[in-house]
Amino acid sequence: MTQSTYTVTGMTCGHCVSSVTEEVQEIRGVSEVAVDLPTGVVTITSAEALDDDAVRAAVEEAGYQLA
Amino acid sequence: MTQSTYTVTGMTCGHCVSSVTEEVQEIRGVSEVAVDLPTGVVTITSAEALDDDAVRAAVEEAGYQLA
Repeated sequence: MTQSTYTVTGMTCGHCVSSVTEEVQEIRGVSEVAVDLPTGVVTITSAEALDDDAVRAAVEEAGYQLA
Repeated sequence: MTQSTYTVTGMTCGHCVSSVTEEVQEIRGVSEVAVDLPTGVVTITSAEALDDDAVRAAVEEAGYQLA
């Protein structure tokens, strides 16, 4: 298991957190996603190291940006 | 047709706007709901005058408050 953290900008409420969480959870190998709304920090637990481009794509699909 | 305006507090993003819009649209007689996110002003078009309590209940169901 690997934990990675990313910072996402533009999330303002719980709906935003849900959108990002749902998209990131769809990345292959991801088992857990934790989002801290005030800081924008997203902590992702995955079976193997994540591809940053996959995370960026998921975050952008949700409508937000990596910092 | 009647137009009524209410001010809703706590909306921060498009998801919030969608939640409020969906709940208010369920009120009997409502034909159109327009939300201005920056100001929180919700303009409701309805067949007859609205019951303020019904609007308040819909907004609270969405997770927000009337100002």
